[in-house]
Amino acid sequence: MPLLDEFFRAPAVERIYSDESFVQAILDFEAALARAEARAGIIPAAAVPAIAAKSRAEFINLPSLARAAASAGNLAIPLVKQLTAAVAEDNPEAARFVHWGATSQDVLDTAAVLQLRAALPLVLSDLDAAAEALAVLAHAHRRSVLPARTWMQQALPTSFGFIVAGWLDALLRHHERLVFLQTSALVLQFGGAVGTLASLGKRGPEVAQFLAEDLLLGLPQIPWHSHRDRLAEVAATFGLAAGTLAKIAHDTSLHAQTEVQELREPVAVGRGGSSTLPHKQNPVACAAILAATLRVPPLVSAMLSAMDHSQQRAMGGWQAEWEILPEIIRLTAGALHRFAAMAPHLAVNVPKMRENLELTRGLIFAEAVSMALSEKLGRAEAHRKVEVACRAAQNAKRHLREVLASDPDITSFLSEADLDRLFDPLNYLGSADTFIDQVLATYRASRAQNGAAQG
Amino acid sequence: MPLLDEFFRAPAVERIYSDESFVQAILDFEAALARAEARAGIIPAAAVPAIAAKSRAEFINLPSLARAAASAGNLAIPLVKQLTAAVAEDNPEAARFVHWGATSQDVLDTAAVLQLRAALPLVLSDLDAAAEALAVLAHAHRRSVLPARTWMQQALPTSFGFIVAGWLDALLRHHERLVFLQTSALVLQFGGAVGTLASLGKRGPEVAQFLAEDLLLGLPQIPWHSHRDRLAEVAATFGLAAGTLAKIAHDTSLHAQTEVQELREPVAVGRGGSSTLPHKQNPVACAAILAATLRVPPLVSAMLSAMDHSQQRAMGGWQAEWEILPEIIRLTAGALHRFAAMAPHLAVNVPKMRENLELTRGLIFAEAVSMALSEKLGRAEAHRKVEVACRAAQNAKRHLREVLASDPDITSFLSEADLDRLFDPLNYLGSADTFIDQVLATYRASRAQNGAAQG
Amino acid sequence: MPLLDEFFRAPAVERIYSDESFVQAILDFEAALARAEARAGIIPAAAVPAIAAKSRAEFINLPSLARAAASAGNLAIPLVKQLTAAVAEDNPEAARFVHWGATSQDVLDTAAVLQLRAALPLVLSDLDAAAEALAVLAHAHRRSVLPARTWMQQALPTSFGFIVAGWLDALLRHHERLVFLQTSALVLQFGGAVGTLASLGKRGPEVAQFLAEDLLLGLPQIPWHSHRDRLAEVAATFGLAAGTLAKIAHDTSLHAQTEVQELREPVAVGRGGSSTLPHKQNPVACAAILAATLRVPPLVSAMLSAMDHSQQRAMGGWQAEWEILPEIIRLTAGALHRFAAMAPHLAVNVPKMRENLELTRGLIFAEAVSMALSEKLGRAEAHRKVEVACRAAQNAKRHLREVLASDPDITSFLSEADLDRLFDPLNYLGSADTFIDQVLATYRASRAQNGAAQG
Amino acid sequence: MPLLDEFFRAPAVERIYSDESFVQAILDFEAALARAEARAGIIPAAAVPAIAAKSRAEFINLPSLARAAASAGNLAIPLVKQLTAAVAEDNPEAARFVHWGATSQDVLDTAAVLQLRAALPLVLSDLDAAAEALAVLAHAHRRSVLPARTWMQQALPTSFGFIVAGWLDALLRHHERLVFLQTSALVLQFGGAVGTLASLGKRGPEVAQFLAEDLLLGLPQIPWHSHRDRLAEVAATFGLAAGTLAKIAHDTSLHAQTEVQELREPVAVGRGGSSTLPHKQNPVACAAILAATLRVPPLVSAMLSAMDHSQQRAMGGWQAEWEILPEIIRLTAGALHRFAAMAPHLAVNVPKMRENLELTRGLIFAEAVSMALSEKLGRAEAHRKVEVACRAAQNAKRHLREVLASDPDITSFLSEADLDRLFDPLNYLGSADTFIDQVLATYRASRAQNGAAQG
Repeated sequence: MPLLDEFFRAPAVERIYSDESFVQAILDFEAALARAEARAGIIPAAAVPAIAAKSRAEFINLPSLARAAASAGNLAIPLVKQLTAAVAEDNPEAARFVHWGATSQDVLDTAAVLQLRAALPLVLSDLDAAAEALAVLAHAHRRSVLPARTWMQQALPTSFGFIVAGWLDALLRHHERLVFLQTSALVLQFGGAVGTLASLGKRGPEVAQFLAEDLLLGLPQIPWHSHRDRLAEVAATFGLAAGTLAKIAHDTSLHAQTEVQELREPVAVGRGGSSTLPHKQNPVACAAILAATLRVPPLVSAMLSAMDHSQQRAMGGWQAEWEILPEIIRLTAGALHRFAAMAPHLAVNVPKMRENLELTRGLIFAEAVSMALSEKLGRAEAHRKVEVACRAAQNAKRHLREVLASDPDITSFLSEADLDRLFDPLNYLGSADTFIDQVLATYRASRAQNGAAQG
Repeated sequence: MPLLDEFFRAPAVERIYSDESFVQAILDFEAALARAEARAGIIPAAAVPAIAAKSRAEFINLPSLARAAASAGNLAIPLVKQLTAAVAEDNPEAARFVHWGATSQDVLDTAAVLQLRAALPLVLSDLDAAAEALAVLAHAHRRSVLPARTWMQQALPTSFGFIVAGWLDALLRHHERLVFLQTSALVLQFGGAVGTLASLGKRGPEVAQFLAEDLLLGLPQIPWHSHRDRLAEVAATFGLAAGTLAKIAHDTSLHAQTEVQELREPVAVGRGGSSTLPHKQNPVACAAILAATLRVPPLVSAMLSAMDHSQQRAMGGWQAEWEILPEIIRLTAGALHRFAAMAPHLAVNVPKMRENLELTRGLIFAEAVSMALSEKLGRAEAHRKVEVACRAAQNAKRHLREVLASDPDITSFLSEADLDRLFDPLNYLGSADTFIDQVLATYRASRAQNGAAQG
Repeated sequence: MPLLDEFFRAPAVERIYSDESFVQAILDFEAALARAEARAGIIPAAAVPAIAAKSRAEFINLPSLARAAASAGNLAIPLVKQLTAAVAEDNPEAARFVHWGATSQDVLDTAAVLQLRAALPLVLSDLDAAAEALAVLAHAHRRSVLPARTWMQQALPTSFGFIVAGWLDALLRHHERLVFLQTSALVLQFGGAVGTLASLGKRGPEVAQFLAEDLLLGLPQIPWHSHRDRLAEVAATFGLAAGTLAKIAHDTSLHAQTEVQELREPVAVGRGGSSTLPHKQNPVACAAILAATLRVPPLVSAMLSAMDHSQQRAMGGWQAEWEILPEIIRLTAGALHRFAAMAPHLAVNVPKMRENLELTRGLIFAEAVSMALSEKLGRAEAHRKVEVACRAAQNAKRHLREVLASDPDITSFLSEADLDRLFDPLNYLGSADTFIDQVLATYRASRAQNGAAQG
Repeated sequence: MPLLDEFFRAPAVERIYSDESFVQAILDFEAALARAEARAGIIPAAAVPAIAAKSRAEFINLPSLARAAASAGNLAIPLVKQLTAAVAEDNPEAARFVHWGATSQDVLDTAAVLQLRAALPLVLSDLDAAAEALAVLAHAHRRSVLPARTWMQQALPTSFGFIVAGWLDALLRHHERLVFLQTSALVLQFGGAVGTLASLGKRGPEVAQFLAEDLLLGLPQIPWHSHRDRLAEVAATFGLAAGTLAKIAHDTSLHAQTEVQELREPVAVGRGGSSTLPHKQNPVACAAILAATLRVPPLVSAMLSAMDHSQQRAMGGWQAEWEILPEIIRLTAGALHRFAAMAPHLAVNVPKMRENLELTRGLIFAEAVSMALSEKLGRAEAHRKVEVACRAAQNAKRHLREVLASDPDITSFLSEADLDRLFDPLNYLGSADTFIDQVLATYRASRAQNGAAQG
């Protein structure tokens, strides 16, 4: 559905998951296999340049490949045929050694791993951009007070910086998880027809090692063709990240409601307008993120179900992965890409945040009062007294502070100055700042480490 | 992922779900809207030909549409802009009336319905072809005996015709369900920005009626933009069909195992070969069906989750549907298409079926013996006696009949002739034939009715 | 998890899905089987009273049943053993005919159908109560104007009655779907070990007919043990209903936000309070509905996946259904039960609804103005002009009406009286009333028909 | 559904997820909170013994708790009320300090973490038992040759030891993942009403630290109440393990088919019998594993979807987790428990495995021949020649070796001795042994490390 690709997906990641790039990944495997087998002395070194020269996607007829795949059962078989023919044109001798000892699944699984390797830095880069934007927001809005909402009801004051620090904290865990995939999932698959590498006699492990070195992939203890947990873990890891993106986009859209107006997506020409409502500024990026991430959990479910690979090559489970895993990565990367574009330009309406704290006529400060009273009356009694005052304030549409100030039962414990203090939101942020500091420290440490790793 | 489209999907249905066809469906709505509003006297009749003339996908710049959709939030907004501009070139006056009073969701939802309407006959046609093939098989193989398997263990004799009649019976229910969608789901969506058709004053229902008549769609009691149960029911209905296709493909692949060899997919050049195993004939169609249908249930789950449309237009839920519903239809249609192509040419190995009945050395006839003894000894005692004989036969690797014939406890109740009869599978098919007849009668009635409906 | 059963589930439906009731449903099958087989002359009539007398759950040792099921593979085997032993105590001769000719799956599948039959009227009764409450609200709030929200932004005025009519319209469709299950799904399963009823010779269909008559269930064309589409359709139908309940609960919670305050769940002692926030009134019922319905779509996915029953009795797929289908019904029934309890007592804050229409300083009336101008300027130009005025109003924090009234470009087309009319929400409800009338008429017709059906 | 608990679930894990244990986990939190706050000097030390003494599940009225939870919205609120009342009976002063400064979510989330901590060692213990059994099998069956199957067709010889080494290798990764959860997921949640710990002034982090120390849990950078990725990762990790268990159980059931008979579940009295088929030995454990694990992926999907927690406490998402996460753990633990019980007693039929290699009349050795010829003819030509010979053998129902031996085109390249060698499966296991060794070495290292960790 290319028409919606820009809505749902990230252009750079799309390029990796294009047909051409997938074919190229397959051909990269074939070229590397030839080099590894020549190095091991299994095929003649002279065959390598001929094979490598033709291992380029531009030489492949994609429509004919697509047609052949339907009856061949996978893309590798007809692709190897095309490659062999192309090599044979220039060097019939070399053509004999194309795809030597490998099986279709080796090629297709390793190509999927190579695509993942190419996609991960792009995803991490968007994640870094988003994290940086959030770190800036968390720091800048430490004292931007607004109502925290639980059960969609205003609960207590909090700061926007604290909320954002929570978002950032989650993103940092996703960063670690995605980085971990570079170890856990970027592993060569090479087992031959049934995993034993029988076609290479006893030389299999040596070729596997050379091939892994050539492709810069990890080398497994045993071929994993029929055990898909590594790829399913990739799916789950992206699924976890998608879950956090959904939460943030959902929250943002709640903050952006006409009745709340605490946040707004960046405004741009042609963006978020309505075909019939000239005044609308729809939170289009949030909707795109929510729509993309809504689809990821069921796709993860499909990927986990597909782990039930029968025997040494699945009927259905393997073939299902071909589109599920890319789609999970594409949708999550797309959501992240939109978030990374939005986060640095999110419009924060600090005055409106503070204004919204006044909507409950002081009820939002009830816990502050209750805790102050608790020191004198115990939690239960204090809670009860304040609950009564809250009901009274609600029924009479009076401000809670006023109700409390007029109740001798309360004023015998709390002075005017006490009430002033208790009804100032900046005095009831608890340890929000400490938590923000802790998250920012982790963020800076993580950034330093990643910078060091890349530097 | 066009490279795998022929593997997973049906070409004819793909054409309906191409970008071009979707754009055309949107433009069909716009042209019909102009006609309906002219008929109602809301826009000038003179505007209609100008709008209709430009309501053709070939005039639309798809890449620019895709780019604009990402920030506009949907395809309708930029498409209406392009259409308006195209109309304005020839007739600026008419351009003023493009999309009059409609909202993006009216257009996109109704376009989705129009695509569904185009797809249903193709799906039903493949279903009819598959049903016809199964009806032929069910009739032809009434007396083709083979082991029925429960818990993947041989249980009792059955006939292949009986098994296929069960498949057919399920397909006939899916046929009814899909036909029902033509009433339940092919319903116009037309509500304006928030469902009230406020932009048409009090004339909304009249325009809606004319529009439904023009598009030959049902007219709902109230716009359904924020209630998606009709489309989710479409998804579920396809999901149910996919479930049956998965079951049949799974069973076929079990029958096709090297150790069973009762069924084989049609053999064709280039089909199901292996890149390394020259002797392999892989059941490629079954794998394609299983892989496609494995993905449908989670997509149905996504579609049901997306029903949680917030308020009068969803954040996420609606946008998610844009690709989920087509994908459910495309994958199910693809699986059905492959099954319809395979079913008439399924190779049935009748001798091997009968041969497999002998694998248990008569144990598969144990229930027949047990039931015969039950008449004399009661169910529990008979079951116990036969269980003992079965264990004895297994342990001694003797044929059950032999064990029974040498046990006076048994022979006092069952003669040689009794045993002959009891060990002939054709004598233990119960009411298989009656059930086949009932299913075939239903099939013929259904076909007659559909023929009448179409004729 | 009984501790949460009252939170998530409906007590009356829970009783049907208790262990005792399931065991009783199994025993009801066994008693009916004895009667049907005696009627067909297959077992002695004298065995029937003895079997029927012991076919009561109170005679069954449930803990021992649970233990035996784990190794037997299902509940029917050990339950039939217990029943046989109980019958044998009084009448050893009758004990010989317990469970005659049936298989475990016949018993368990039909018991599941009997439970469904018992649950459906309870579910429909809650649905009726909810529908009645919504019909009252839809009628009462025809002129209760409030902002319609699209993309979580105020879009246009609507009436709360219109919104509720949309909810009701969807519920009426679910009513039809649930009623339809009484025909489509309440079907006997009776096929013996592999579906052929071989153990009954040629008498199977006759016994099946008597059994269906006794249990008041439909009679299928062919046993459906390995084709689960009827039960999966039950799952999907409940899934569809759950989707609508989620949407309504979600909307209600959005209307109930502190910043919106248009709706409130009924207040009750001990309800929705917070352990720390004395002023909170949490929308507990909405949360319970959302939590229950969030889980249904993935369970429907599981049920659809489980349709892949291998051969004549599944490895896994069948056994998985045992808890999935009840859970889908229980969670959906629980959500509906909470909604039916909440709907009649929903507190509607009409003044606040109207107040919220003023939040955009007139922007919400932009389309009304735009449409009025369109008649003079064409859609595009009018849209553009109003968009400019909206931006101006937003930037200057002025009321849109004021901006328009001060723009000669506008006032040359729209008089003061025009603007008065255009900024009154009651003048921009379009056909809301007509749509409400249509839905209420359908509701009354449906109620009359159901009353007649029950009367 | 207790009747099926022994079928689907592990008794020891069930005890942890009983109502009583959950209540106790909540009370453990409350007692620890009192200790931590006394240590921090926030509540009087004298209150601690009174609170601790009553923090025992036996003092709690569960039915009344269940009833209250439905309207209170969660279990913690009424439970704290009961606890407070119980403490007050003995020590009214201490009762004032129950639950001081905490919120319901702190209690419920941390209780869930405590349950997870209790469950993990039980799960790991079953995993260890299963791994040990597989290690023994992998080693013992290095030379037990059988057909490897791809696409459910015999492909090449392999050894059963090699297959099992693949299973073991996957289990070892799951072991690591589950151990990792002990770091990543066993983290305190303590944030007060909205995460800021405002009710404790600036003392929150100190109390949090003492509380984490008391409960032996990790201390997060910031409360995670509205970011559920840690728990969702638990769900995904169990989902990955479930996927592997499904694959192994599926494979086992395929090997156990009547037509294959290479494996058989342990036979036991009352196990896997059929109610009507006296000879059946159903693979009950495999069915239970498949049925349990079929349900886990959709539940993981639900858990990922539930990550969309709105704002500072979710409407629906959080409440949904209460039953989803336990169910994922229970079903996976149940599947693993059954597998751990089955694996050491799996009956391996080595002669039948070798016999099955003969079913294709030598075709299974085609690749061996093809590779041998490739050295002389190139891959493509060799493949073609062998494919022709295979077709000839199939058509004439002759043994491939015979066909080859009678073809001068072949015999000019391959001698009789060559053919002898090529048709011996033990000569075509490639590097199976090396791979087994590598996996076993990893297993031993992992066991040593875990032993050391525990020792």
